Amino acid sequence: MIDTQRPGEIRAPVDPAAMPADVGIVFIGVARTPWTNRSTMPKNLRQARERGGWARIEIAPPWRLGLKDLGPGSAVFVLTWFDRARRDLLVQAPRHREQPTGVFSLRSPVRPNPIGLHATRLLSCDAEAGVLELDALDCLDGTPVLDIKPWLPSVDVPPGMEGQ
Amino acid sequence: MIDTQRPGEIRAPVDPAAMPADVGIVFIGVARTPWTNRSTMPKNLRQARERGGWARIEIAPPWRLGLKDLGPGSAVFVLTWFDRARRDLLVQAPRHREQPTGVFSLRSPVRPNPIGLHATRLLSCDAEAGVLELDALDCLDGTPVLDIKPWLPSVDVPPGMEGQ
Repeated sequence: MIDTQRPGEIRAPVDPAAMPADVGIVFIGVARTPWTNRSTMPKNLRQARERGGWARIEIAPPWRLGLKDLGPGSAVFVLTWFDRARRDLLVQAPRHREQPTGVFSLRSPVRPNPIGLHATRLLSCDAEAGVLELDALDCLDGTPVLDIKPWLPSVDVPPGMEGQ
Repeated sequence: MIDTQRPGEIRAPVDPAAMPADVGIVFIGVARTPWTNRSTMPKNLRQARERGGWARIEIAPPWRLGLKDLGPGSAVFVLTWFDRARRDLLVQAPRHREQPTGVFSLRSPVRPNPIGLHATRLLSCDAEAGVLELDALDCLDGTPVLDIKPWLPSVDVPPGMEGQ
């Protein structure tokens, strides 16, 4: 875990080594990607796609029946857990921003609950083996997976953003 | 918690009273909506919008500095925790489907990690008071909030779904 703090960044008043927990989540699987190094990995999903990043998800046996009805071409959100990200930086100073910025205006993996959200397309789904191939993922190899949801044009585009 | 099981539904081989937890999440706030009854609430975000459902998020004090830079008009994802949903149904038989369907092809609140994903638009943001007004939310009043993320057209529309 990287715990450097840049000028202008602001921490939350919590102990990062003992984050409060209101409820527990279960890792249902793991992401496999070509990205093994934080400093050279794509900065976002578009970059991951442009760099031809293959991506795979391996779902653990207890949850595989839930893969029924997923198939090639399905547009899905994958939710991941950025397990190597610190959780206590409320204001962050990313390189691409001129000013320190509030975490809830950033897609940074560093956030109180480091949940990653990835809008992808399924290339294949072997429900029995628990293996899904995706067009791309912008997370490190080995990142835990929390959920898969169908991407629905009727609800997943906020008002005023249609046709973007 | 409702724990009925319809014909064709399949449970995961886990004890719902003792779900495995790999990591803890923190509730950063709470959603306020007009919906207090599961049976009469909107089935999705589009219905919530059509029914003129106001929605508000109240962020707890430790996390409010992260609201910096959010303002009226921002398109955001809100992530919630469906705290009243069971977590062990892998195959579900919703009324609107002819056949029992895998959970990862449904947006049902019932899922291994009951995380809600809502693509909304901010009407206002009072960072100091920790209060955000949204165009709509399809969750029960009192639902815990996990995260807010900017909605970005460049990464949040899967390939092939542009212009939907």
